[in-house]
Amino acid sequence: MSLPARVKIYEVGPRDGLQNEKAIVPTATKIELIERLANAGLEYIEASSFVSPKWVPQMGDAAEVFAGLKPKEGVTYSALVPNDRGMDGAVAAGVEEIAVFAAASESFSQKNINCSIEESFERFAPVIQRANNQGMFVRGYVSCVAGCPYEGAIDESAVVKVAAKLFDMGCYEISLGDTIGVGTPEQIKSLVKAVKAHDVPIEKIALHCHDTYGQALANIYAGLQEGVTVIDSAVGGLGGCPYAKGASGNVATEDVLYMLNGLGIETGADINAIVDTAWFISDYLGIKPHSKVACVGRTD
Amino acid sequence: MSLPARVKIYEVGPRDGLQNEKAIVPTATKIELIERLANAGLEYIEASSFVSPKWVPQMGDAAEVFAGLKPKEGVTYSALVPNDRGMDGAVAAGVEEIAVFAAASESFSQKNINCSIEESFERFAPVIQRANNQGMFVRGYVSCVAGCPYEGAIDESAVVKVAAKLFDMGCYEISLGDTIGVGTPEQIKSLVKAVKAHDVPIEKIALHCHDTYGQALANIYAGLQEGVTVIDSAVGGLGGCPYAKGASGNVATEDVLYMLNGLGIETGADINAIVDTAWFISDYLGIKPHSKVACVGRTD
Repeated sequence: MSLPARVKIYEVGPRDGLQNEKAIVPTATKIELIERLANAGLEYIEASSFVSPKWVPQMGDAAEVFAGLKPKEGVTYSALVPNDRGMDGAVAAGVEEIAVFAAASESFSQKNINCSIEESFERFAPVIQRANNQGMFVRGYVSCVAGCPYEGAIDESAVVKVAAKLFDMGCYEISLGDTIGVGTPEQIKSLVKAVKAHDVPIEKIALHCHDTYGQALANIYAGLQEGVTVIDSAVGGLGGCPYAKGASGNVATEDVLYMLNGLGIETGADINAIVDTAWFISDYLGIKPHSKVACVGRTD
Repeated sequence: MSLPARVKIYEVGPRDGLQNEKAIVPTATKIELIERLANAGLEYIEASSFVSPKWVPQMGDAAEVFAGLKPKEGVTYSALVPNDRGMDGAVAAGVEEIAVFAAASESFSQKNINCSIEESFERFAPVIQRANNQGMFVRGYVSCVAGCPYEGAIDESAVVKVAAKLFDMGCYEISLGDTIGVGTPEQIKSLVKAVKAHDVPIEKIALHCHDTYGQALANIYAGLQEGVTVIDSAVGGLGGCPYAKGASGNVATEDVLYMLNGLGIETGADINAIVDTAWFISDYLGIKPHSKVACVGRTD
């Protein structure tokens, strides 16, 4: 069992992270954050979400964020697009890569995007088709892969079904999200194995771990052993967990990088620049980074 | 590669943890902490250290702690014993199991226990012999196994040498300590493999991980894959890292238990009782537990 030589980090801090922080960050600060991340060597950055500002005010400036971002060779800025209307915004903003967001849990789908899992596919179908017609890449998120805040345990078969469906519909990459961070390493391994077995090639499978129970790095290590080469993370561990008071959210990019560096896995990212960026945005938010690596040597 | 069915948790919070907290905890509170841990199902608890109160005032009441602990069937309360004089105290207190503390780094040995590695063996030899003569078990710690705060990288061969020596001298268990938490999973795997290869049986090898860089659980998972069945941890992640400002110390017992429970590995410990105990001592210290699991659902 050998580990991959290179891993693609998919940075979700500016979207999944900031969306779950209380403060509404000004557009210019978001742009600076994103460009710092790109300059630190991250090649995939989810920059915003074309979602109704009524529901997610933190992402209300998606168009302005994209308008302000200087294109950078080798760097992809992506956006979450929940529906056809969001797609209009993404197209107008010239976004190159979008993401759609489905759930492996029926209750979570209902509460989070207000439709059944089946209906969410119907909603995404025209979005994915339109994107693919325009040469845009589409990423598919599957949330609640290791458990649901409303239903508890989620059957592996439910995850596999949603993952395979999104892949069949035209998503080039499927991100398996442990939205509430309840998974443990063998469970994640088994999940990845099952999704692989249902015809999603391993190089198309990403892991999106939240560190709610501190399991994220162990889960990522387990995923790497299973051949996963794409890891989602958020600088400074941005974003709490909306389903568990006091809990942390996304695994921190710098903590992931520390492990990958130690494992001799290439990422192209500069951990020191990421730590600086974690402090840049955390200082702005008036919080301490949710990251062990960022906090070593700094207590303020 | 199958994981072990059962893991022995070696709880070090009352000693390694409290020794590195600023506050001096009253004896009665320490006793309550230790008895809560025993009642939560932990079978090995390092309760104190027979060390000069001049150097470690936090452990100045070792004799009183042992005098106050009610014996509990199936539970071992152990103490760190740095030298022959400490051994007098441990014998007088009727301690059943002691631990000695060596380093894999020459500089760390000098700065921490004021002698060379070789001299530390000479110092421990009569302690270990005396203990074994009295039917006391002796545990051997090796610190700095993945790196040293003064020297940086530490050769695997240095770790192997110290581990094998302590085992040969009569220690029944060798705890490999990543004192500054710099290790990553494959490094830990390789270390365990090397120590095994030099005639310390795998069931005699413990992992003692600090979570300074967030790597502890991934490292423990790697160790389990290599066959390790003894894990050191501290309730509430007690104890900071004296070598890195702002960093956390011992991996939290409840975070380890969450992973082991998820992996289907038996420990005999009740995670909810451990979380309660983490809050009991953290509330006393006026800190938030250094633990993800303890903090889920509680922000105060």
